[in-house]
Amino acid sequence: MLQLKRVGLHTYGENVVFLSAHCRTYKPKAFASFNKVEVSGAGRSIMATLNIVENGGLLDPESLGLSISAFDDLGLPEGAQVSLRPATQSRSLEAVRRKIGGETLSAEELHAIVRDIAAHRYSKTEITAFVVACSSFMTTKEVMGLTSAMADAGTRLRWDTPPCNFSMVVDKHCVGGVPGNRTSMIVVPIVAAYGLPIPKTSSRAITSPAGTADTMEVLANVDVSIERMQDIVHRHRGCLTWGGRVNLSPADDIMITVERPLAIDTPEQMVASILSKKIAAGATHLVIDMPVGPTAKVRSTVEATRLRKLFEYVGAALGLQITVLVTDGTQPVGRGIGPVLEARDVMAVLRNTSAAPADLKERAILLAGALLDFDPSLKGGEGAKRARDILESGKALAAMEAIMKAQGCPPQPCELGVLVRDVMAPASGVVAAIDCYRIARIARLAGAPGSKGAGIDIFHKVGNRVEKGAALYRIHAAVETDFGFATAMAEELNGYTIAA
Amino acid sequence: MLQLKRVGLHTYGENVVFLSAHCRTYKPKAFASFNKVEVSGAGRSIMATLNIVENGGLLDPESLGLSISAFDDLGLPEGAQVSLRPATQSRSLEAVRRKIGGETLSAEELHAIVRDIAAHRYSKTEITAFVVACSSFMTTKEVMGLTSAMADAGTRLRWDTPPCNFSMVVDKHCVGGVPGNRTSMIVVPIVAAYGLPIPKTSSRAITSPAGTADTMEVLANVDVSIERMQDIVHRHRGCLTWGGRVNLSPADDIMITVERPLAIDTPEQMVASILSKKIAAGATHLVIDMPVGPTAKVRSTVEATRLRKLFEYVGAALGLQITVLVTDGTQPVGRGIGPVLEARDVMAVLRNTSAAPADLKERAILLAGALLDFDPSLKGGEGAKRARDILESGKALAAMEAIMKAQGCPPQPCELGVLVRDVMAPASGVVAAIDCYRIARIARLAGAPGSKGAGIDIFHKVGNRVEKGAALYRIHAAVETDFGFATAMAEELNGYTIAA
Repeated sequence: MLQLKRVGLHTYGENVVFLSAHCRTYKPKAFASFNKVEVSGAGRSIMATLNIVENGGLLDPESLGLSISAFDDLGLPEGAQVSLRPATQSRSLEAVRRKIGGETLSAEELHAIVRDIAAHRYSKTEITAFVVACSSFMTTKEVMGLTSAMADAGTRLRWDTPPCNFSMVVDKHCVGGVPGNRTSMIVVPIVAAYGLPIPKTSSRAITSPAGTADTMEVLANVDVSIERMQDIVHRHRGCLTWGGRVNLSPADDIMITVERPLAIDTPEQMVASILSKKIAAGATHLVIDMPVGPTAKVRSTVEATRLRKLFEYVGAALGLQITVLVTDGTQPVGRGIGPVLEARDVMAVLRNTSAAPADLKERAILLAGALLDFDPSLKGGEGAKRARDILESGKALAAMEAIMKAQGCPPQPCELGVLVRDVMAPASGVVAAIDCYRIARIARLAGAPGSKGAGIDIFHKVGNRVEKGAALYRIHAAVETDFGFATAMAEELNGYTIAA
Repeated sequence: MLQLKRVGLHTYGENVVFLSAHCRTYKPKAFASFNKVEVSGAGRSIMATLNIVENGGLLDPESLGLSISAFDDLGLPEGAQVSLRPATQSRSLEAVRRKIGGETLSAEELHAIVRDIAAHRYSKTEITAFVVACSSFMTTKEVMGLTSAMADAGTRLRWDTPPCNFSMVVDKHCVGGVPGNRTSMIVVPIVAAYGLPIPKTSSRAITSPAGTADTMEVLANVDVSIERMQDIVHRHRGCLTWGGRVNLSPADDIMITVERPLAIDTPEQMVASILSKKIAAGATHLVIDMPVGPTAKVRSTVEATRLRKLFEYVGAALGLQITVLVTDGTQPVGRGIGPVLEARDVMAVLRNTSAAPADLKERAILLAGALLDFDPSLKGGEGAKRARDILESGKALAAMEAIMKAQGCPPQPCELGVLVRDVMAPASGVVAAIDCYRIARIARLAGAPGSKGAGIDIFHKVGNRVEKGAALYRIHAAVETDFGFATAMAEELNGYTIAA
């Protein structure tokens, strides 16, 4: 038996176990070929990838180290007696191998795979193998099986039980790729003010400059337990919290750690990822914002149509009513990109000030209208009109303030980044295009969303006439190195096309 | 700039960089989404995966740690000033994405991918994505492109220049899966004694209980530089060295780190892996031993035929003459499994003692004969006869002793493992089958090849009559934990089928 030790290393999605090269109880070489090992103690066990520690500093020879996530998963205290053995491969890997070979998998096989992934029984290599094999080819039936397996693998929120007793729960989601498209923070208060339950959980950004959870966190606490969330939604009909806290479709979060770096974004995986989260969150009706543009995630209307049909097909099969709205994804929405700047735009729309970006406001009304149209008691096509009334009357602002208050204060005050650089038009003309992907990358390098006040403030959108030397946008950063990365990337290519 | 520090961690094929969570120069969060970072200093740079170090023990805040392989690749001393930046993704990944999407890749694209893999520019996730996409589907032309790209990416040995001036260089390879099949150590001295150049480089075992390099190391040094290898082959016409030292097809070694744990073994990948190594080693004529059996790597004659044709097709296109011999893969070859035990069998064959396993001897003669048959001056079909003469006359033993002497003493003396357990027949009857895979796994758990004296000594082969309680084989181990793992696995299922 070895003594358990916590090694303070974030290893990003992979559980790692550290064994000393000088261990006398176990010969590291004996394990070298097994890729995965099983660590057991006090009736608990986890699977992990083995790293061998050569010298003394990190680990003494008769200790067994676990990375932060592995230590948390095992749930034993430091110093606990643990043993090690070569891990038996997950049986579901046999199905992964057949999938690689071109076979289609049954719902049962997909459930077994997803259960093993959610339980951290797959190594990163194995997760990648599954994700890549799926992105080569999947039948619609497999997408249904995968979606329902993913929804089943974590927490499932219920809203039809006391105290809520909601028979209908609406939700919205944007497939992404358009910076600044922070409509949820306007849609939720409109819909909640109308009276439809909309318990919105959002992610933090993984590759974008801000997720809704990051931006909402500028205004309020988002780290809310299931119990408090139910209470808030019971009282206010809406919330805007961080989904990571409530463990919805955890296999999705794990699979994303390989999908994102590989830029794998097939329709099948998007549908399984989004719908599994929404089903787990207990939604019955869903509006999907699908921006289409040459630099957005969905690049053509043909692609959009295929994706829409897959959403509708799988949604219907799993009992979720879906409206897909194909929207403009040719340029960023609003002006600010990055948590503080986006929160500023959102509040300007809710407050109906003159600084409110019209495109953000109109998109929010469109989406909220589609959600209200799910209400059987509303006359057909009334939704958007009602949404506009609620927003412009200040009722949405009041609902937002109530939700903010219920969720609590933000964890820390956020300031706009003080390192600024204006990016200038190199020539006079008309803004012909803005590259969403490039702008997002620059904002990201500036430090968003980790640094809440970092990002980009856009001064000119597509169609605007600009003179040579006019500021197109301003980069904000809080840290020198970030500022250097972002300005260097903007100098290389600023993301704007100016036509004469 | 940060101070470079070597972190003594073996991270198995992935370069890892360690950054303190408390670093003031770089904000770890800013890098969290990039998956890969580039570390630069003194005009050198490497790509690596980022891990964040939470607490102080491992790394001070203004140091940058590198795992053992990453530190070696960068090649700078500890304390050197290094900087960090988000890595630009390898451009060749775009081709990987298209391969995942079902497209076929050009030779140029495959070369770019393989160059990046060999230069450690791919993360493990990216390598897995490429390997899995290739194993779903590859055209024969792609296999040719991949093979030649892999051969080009490392060292290429030349034998047609002074001092050797060989116009013809022969080699052999076994596709594997049959424990104890240690024919190379008999074939090389036979062929060298005949006078054909056979500069044999071998791998160490990755998932099997012994590679030829592991077994040869019981008898002689195998860690030989290119210059010494050329001198030895010039003088003795043969050698038996470790291929890892001379960097042949390094992309293959990297891809294997993901193929093995996933048990991906498609004909296309086997052909690219084996032929790239042989082309890089400078072979002009190659004999491939392809054992076929229900528990071997190649499981049916249909599979064997397909694989043989692919070998021949790709070999011919790349200027390598190939003879494929389909052999018996239904049970282990020889008696010993594990380095010391296999070396014992090999020497018994070379010494023509009564302990020499007949199956090992006959297989070696078959393969050596096929190699001699490449000699245009030999009458058709004479090869096997000549091989037998050379072996039985003691000329092969003399050649082996000369090669061993030229390569030098083994790095350490090896003893047979002293922890022994006989595995008994549970009933009387005839040995109907021996599971190669199971036997290999038990020998591996016993500690082979890391522990040279560990392994299995087989007493009864298929067709033998055994009485209940007779010893089928003996497990040898040197370390208690290994011994426990191996005996437990043998007790669960011993790998033998006894028919009444």
